[in-house]
Amino acid sequence: MLGFHKIPTVFEYEDFVSCGQSVPYVRLIGESWPMTKERSYFEATALKHQHSLSPKHVPEVYHFDRTMSLIGMRYIEPPHIILRRGLIAGIEYPLLAEHMAEFMANTLFYTSLLYLTTTQHKNAVAEFCANVEICRLTEQVVFSDPYKISEFNRWTSPYLDTDTEAVRNDNNLKLEVAELKFCEKTQALIHGDLHTSSVMVTQDSTQVIDPEFAFYGPMGFDIGAFLGNLFLAYFAQDGHADQGNDRKSYKVWITDTISGTWNLFHKKFTSLWDKHKEGPGEAFLYAIYNNVELWELVKQKYMTELFHDSLGFAAAKMIRRIVGVAHVEDFESITDLVKRADCERRALDFAKMLMKKRRNFNTITDVISAAQ
Amino acid sequence: MLGFHKIPTVFEYEDFVSCGQSVPYVRLIGESWPMTKERSYFEATALKHQHSLSPKHVPEVYHFDRTMSLIGMRYIEPPHIILRRGLIAGIEYPLLAEHMAEFMANTLFYTSLLYLTTTQHKNAVAEFCANVEICRLTEQVVFSDPYKISEFNRWTSPYLDTDTEAVRNDNNLKLEVAELKFCEKTQALIHGDLHTSSVMVTQDSTQVIDPEFAFYGPMGFDIGAFLGNLFLAYFAQDGHADQGNDRKSYKVWITDTISGTWNLFHKKFTSLWDKHKEGPGEAFLYAIYNNVELWELVKQKYMTELFHDSLGFAAAKMIRRIVGVAHVEDFESITDLVKRADCERRALDFAKMLMKKRRNFNTITDVISAAQ
Repeated sequence: MLGFHKIPTVFEYEDFVSCGQSVPYVRLIGESWPMTKERSYFEATALKHQHSLSPKHVPEVYHFDRTMSLIGMRYIEPPHIILRRGLIAGIEYPLLAEHMAEFMANTLFYTSLLYLTTTQHKNAVAEFCANVEICRLTEQVVFSDPYKISEFNRWTSPYLDTDTEAVRNDNNLKLEVAELKFCEKTQALIHGDLHTSSVMVTQDSTQVIDPEFAFYGPMGFDIGAFLGNLFLAYFAQDGHADQGNDRKSYKVWITDTISGTWNLFHKKFTSLWDKHKEGPGEAFLYAIYNNVELWELVKQKYMTELFHDSLGFAAAKMIRRIVGVAHVEDFESITDLVKRADCERRALDFAKMLMKKRRNFNTITDVISAAQ
Repeated sequence: MLGFHKIPTVFEYEDFVSCGQSVPYVRLIGESWPMTKERSYFEATALKHQHSLSPKHVPEVYHFDRTMSLIGMRYIEPPHIILRRGLIAGIEYPLLAEHMAEFMANTLFYTSLLYLTTTQHKNAVAEFCANVEICRLTEQVVFSDPYKISEFNRWTSPYLDTDTEAVRNDNNLKLEVAELKFCEKTQALIHGDLHTSSVMVTQDSTQVIDPEFAFYGPMGFDIGAFLGNLFLAYFAQDGHADQGNDRKSYKVWITDTISGTWNLFHKKFTSLWDKHKEGPGEAFLYAIYNNVELWELVKQKYMTELFHDSLGFAAAKMIRRIVGVAHVEDFESITDLVKRADCERRALDFAKMLMKKRRNFNTITDVISAAQ
């Protein structure tokens, strides 16, 4: 299911229940690309779990019908809109970074081995392994197709023809993409598709929806998806600028939101870790790491690796939205193709650099400087 | 089940069937440490799969009774003996490196994403996630207990008291142990306990048994277990030397076997990868990596990482056999405690160095030089 906002609402009860139903194919492509309806089971399961971990930022599921692949959940009422639309319109959301950091810190920390016992973790990993069809879809459209000739790829042609070919011929880039090991890391229960159309917002509310791609995977895939899509919005702003609004101050807000998201995530995630350092988590037993210096080193090493992972995934998510099958409205809504291609090229060049040099960045501020 | 050779044989049919049965506790500790008998299901499943992948080096399973936790399999006839006993006795096995390299290359390659589709791989990962109790046991006795105070730890006291304390206080060592991420990598179906007592040998036959610890984990854990145990045998030789045999030439054979195992594994594993480069495996699609230079780079990067992983796990397996709960007969059979402690200390110092500096080694020959 792709969320109630994108598909016909089946029924609504007095505006506080919203329902969505899976279709047995990939919506973007159509019936020629079949896809299991069972993904709605994983969406419902993930929604319930994420709601329990981050209740303010995930709608409650009231009912799930597996036979019908139908989810009934809290209706996210107007004036909530899809975040991507807000970013295109140039609307600032002052609490977005704070809320997304909270959502990611809670859902990732509490489903990782930093909090769970090995038994709990492996049982959960096993359950979500069955969401493999959708995991393969991600693998194909994010990590494979953009780097080879594929009937599904498209780009702003002819302007980006050379750039697209360059992606396919960039050996270092392709080596670094493989290094991300999307399919072999069972770090935490990830949303799996955390772009800016999976988030609904108002000035004071942020709701994360559509976790149909959820499985136990690398945390950096979620963090990177969100940051990468904010970077796409950033690079699209010049295409949305007009005489009334040059979008310069909005670009500053976007970069502040990018740095805020990572920095607040870092703070909240490590706080949770500190809070539960003597908890059930078996990855770093406090009996082993219980001196101040070592404990700080452990966290620093873990967070640095997660930061570099997140940057790599951010880059992968950006690249695939420019040369792969699924594009973003941030760019698609720029009708002047020359202007659009120019925005896309700058985003693509930044993403390629980020993928290859991600381990050289120590702070999110440095990453933003590179983008500017 | 710990293999027919260690437990009472329940029945034998004309010398070619051997049976073993799980007990509901950890054999080494006794009934005070309960352990699921279901591990025999995973042992039988892994044995069957490994036999299909490496038939010359894994006995065939004829019958498995899940209710009885009973495995009936090919009897490994005399003069096969447990490899560890042979190493203590100073017996050379000229084909050991070749055979173990073949076993590891076949069982690891064909169960990894280099050969399997994501769907096949995730289904298999899910199945073996249920072997979690035994996976937790490994986590505890290999990666946790040796680095903290634990009632189960023991060492050659008082000679190694200071050394044992030093392990618990070595921050860099503990950071590096955590880096191995034993529980988060689902790289391939690993044997999970591939030490020199899980291998039975003659001059021309090598049989790998007892995969009750099997699960989808890091390949380096198997390779490291075998290499680490050969290094333990190497460091124990001075304790077995006497006037009749100074063991010097035997030490050369052991180091030759260590280098032979890794180098032949490297050759066989990359050959399988080349052979199946256009096969079903989805980790490195040939359509993306199909130029000679890039293909070589991909393999080189993968094998270097696997080498460093293997060295880390080898070090972890050595350390835990000296300061953890389960020791090895290689050292235990040295009755002179001063001599035993001296051998153990040199092994421990080497292992600590190997854990911390593993990424500085480029070849197995360099590792062996460091041991010498």
